[in-house]
Amino acid sequence: MKADGATMASASARGEPDRDLCEALFEELRLATGDGVGITRESFGPGESRALDIIERTARTLGLATDRDAGANLIVTLSGVQPDLPYFACGSHLDSVPQGGNFDGGAGVIAGLAVLAGLKRDGIVPRRTLKLFALRGEESAWFGKAYIGSSALMGRLTPEDLAMPHAVSGRPLRDCMRTAGVDVDRVARGEPLLDRRMMAAWVELHIEQGPVLVARDLPIGIVTGIRGNLRHRSVECLGEAGHSGAVPRWLRRDAVFATAELITHLDRHWRTLLERGRDLVVTSGIMSTDLTEHAIARIPGSLRFSFEMRSQNRETLESFYDLFLSECTDIADQRNVEFKLDRRLESAPASMDLGWIERLRATARALGLPDEALPSGAGHDAAVFANAGIPSAMIFVRNEHGSHNPHESMRMSDFLAGVAVMKRALMEAADER
Amino acid sequence: MKADGATMASASARGEPDRDLCEALFEELRLATGDGVGITRESFGPGESRALDIIERTARTLGLATDRDAGANLIVTLSGVQPDLPYFACGSHLDSVPQGGNFDGGAGVIAGLAVLAGLKRDGIVPRRTLKLFALRGEESAWFGKAYIGSSALMGRLTPEDLAMPHAVSGRPLRDCMRTAGVDVDRVARGEPLLDRRMMAAWVELHIEQGPVLVARDLPIGIVTGIRGNLRHRSVECLGEAGHSGAVPRWLRRDAVFATAELITHLDRHWRTLLERGRDLVVTSGIMSTDLTEHAIARIPGSLRFSFEMRSQNRETLESFYDLFLSECTDIADQRNVEFKLDRRLESAPASMDLGWIERLRATARALGLPDEALPSGAGHDAAVFANAGIPSAMIFVRNEHGSHNPHESMRMSDFLAGVAVMKRALMEAADER
Repeated sequence: MKADGATMASASARGEPDRDLCEALFEELRLATGDGVGITRESFGPGESRALDIIERTARTLGLATDRDAGANLIVTLSGVQPDLPYFACGSHLDSVPQGGNFDGGAGVIAGLAVLAGLKRDGIVPRRTLKLFALRGEESAWFGKAYIGSSALMGRLTPEDLAMPHAVSGRPLRDCMRTAGVDVDRVARGEPLLDRRMMAAWVELHIEQGPVLVARDLPIGIVTGIRGNLRHRSVECLGEAGHSGAVPRWLRRDAVFATAELITHLDRHWRTLLERGRDLVVTSGIMSTDLTEHAIARIPGSLRFSFEMRSQNRETLESFYDLFLSECTDIADQRNVEFKLDRRLESAPASMDLGWIERLRATARALGLPDEALPSGAGHDAAVFANAGIPSAMIFVRNEHGSHNPHESMRMSDFLAGVAVMKRALMEAADER
Repeated sequence: MKADGATMASASARGEPDRDLCEALFEELRLATGDGVGITRESFGPGESRALDIIERTARTLGLATDRDAGANLIVTLSGVQPDLPYFACGSHLDSVPQGGNFDGGAGVIAGLAVLAGLKRDGIVPRRTLKLFALRGEESAWFGKAYIGSSALMGRLTPEDLAMPHAVSGRPLRDCMRTAGVDVDRVARGEPLLDRRMMAAWVELHIEQGPVLVARDLPIGIVTGIRGNLRHRSVECLGEAGHSGAVPRWLRRDAVFATAELITHLDRHWRTLLERGRDLVVTSGIMSTDLTEHAIARIPGSLRFSFEMRSQNRETLESFYDLFLSECTDIADQRNVEFKLDRRLESAPASMDLGWIERLRATARALGLPDEALPSGAGHDAAVFANAGIPSAMIFVRNEHGSHNPHESMRMSDFLAGVAVMKRALMEAADER
């Protein structure tokens, strides 16, 4: 965008992604959706829509065709010589957690645009069509459920899902989707919004949200599988409030002490499962006594908390969930409290396509890059595509300070290395017979 | 107040407290300081001041002398024949917790007014003066520290105390006291606001905030001693936020799991001390992850909680506090978190005066009432008077559903039984040579 002719010409000559285009897009997204602390792009909300608009406008400027699907996602297309053949898709999501970072999701969309724009710039027309999907609603922070946008695409949202309230406004998901332009009636009927047989593969570039690539000093990595999760947005422990000085221990129904014991027991089970080689992480990210009535000198009569477990293995998830339920029952009995669980939400674990893992690793090696394979602890839309039967793959880009915070830190050189791998791999796949 | 002449005349003839006066006053307080859910009379705030005004106006209407002291407390006086002799004092506090009940504190003030008003009505002038103190700032809910009003009276507030922020507005105690009319400069100098040698005794009627009198089916009880407490308004567990799926257990610095373990360990120590016959209760009434950044899919990087321990025995308090500190240190080490403690606040345990306990029990028996003695789990201003060397005593009135909530439930007949005991005991003491 801001590049002078000479730079663009030389990047073009080497077939490299356009660094200036990418930098300018990251900056434009950051300015348009900054919240003073970090980045806020609500799922099916205005920040997310602004981000889609920015990508769409830039794609058109670069001569690429754009469209919105019934899920109100943005699709950018570089038509191939044989547009009737199944196409190769890439992309990621444009929503963010509250006060999150600019790269989680955004990097994959900008990477896809860089790939399509680079081919367009260089006048390359592959045999098969390439499409970039800029998806909505991947983050669970807003409605408690992850992958909403890609699930809608696959016809996998239930009426219960559509009734989920927004974490801040309480507005049902259905209404927020409709405002964003989604054809909610089709989604409610469980109708897939795209023909999955036409998508030959899904390739997603994403920052790594864990510490592995930084620790191993690797610019990129190729993902083998994605952890699934089971969660409750809200578990309420209900006991009985009372004067903190006047009720003896044996008569107490203390929601904080009961929940502390629950978590400590589950932590012990977690350690045991890790010792047995299972893959598992457990988190209670939100916890609070009742703000309207809690006091230092008052036995807490209620405590709300979120509860989440993640694993690459479905059986591990289910067996830990059983432990969770049985500990709730035991502690409720012993302490005369009640644990009220809201609806159980789940995202299935997913395996990436072996052929595509090998293709991406080989491409990385061919470009003189490391080809390290690693699992993804965090969830990604690629899990939904994979579980819908579409061969799926992911490229991780090194990133410091984790994600879901304003301190995400991705070097542009690492990002461009990931884009280069994705571009070469997609181009070669699209030209194969 | 609303009583017809015949009822008042017959109550007068029997020397009984004026039931209608008391009922009308409870109702007036309730209407003036209701918050839609319960009762809210902030320490040194407008609701508390309104309550003092109501008592003052009624006292004057009944022909009693009123005054405000340098602590902005209300003092109602029935002068004795020998006003230079030390006087007998009764009373309680008029503040409440947020959404609290109408009887906690208010009952003791109305009881005192009923005693003085009854004597005045019947034309009785005791040898010594009787005074009612309607105190401010007893509840710790607003500034984290209990007994602020009575401590000010005894010259026992420090500059640090005066800097404590209001729980909601953050305004320092000093400023709130000044607005309420307190001579803050005298308080800041640690100057007692009354001559404690002139107070021959402090007698306080209060609802029981625990379940004992209800369980034993007793209308009233005589208090033997008052639990003291040690507390921190705010302990902050500081770990590190991160993506809930991407950070393995061994790299986590999870503030919720660390605090859950802390509380579970302390609960075990608590049980052990109870088994050894120690008197102790432990409460964490307020607990919350950071509302501005917590999320289901985010490892909680911080958790704030209040922590309080109460005992009738100072040594038990100190030894449990040591356990608390050493568990904080151990868990901080093991889990790579930090526990940041705010200022330690304490209220000393107190023993009621043995002579007065006997006097109240004997009076109860003489009136055909049970004379059960019981300890107070909750704190009361009487502890401050007792620890200042003033012989102090308390009468508990049966009350259902505990206190610090809108469901306090005191029967008027139980209350009047307590008032009758207080009246007879004070009158007899005031007439003794």
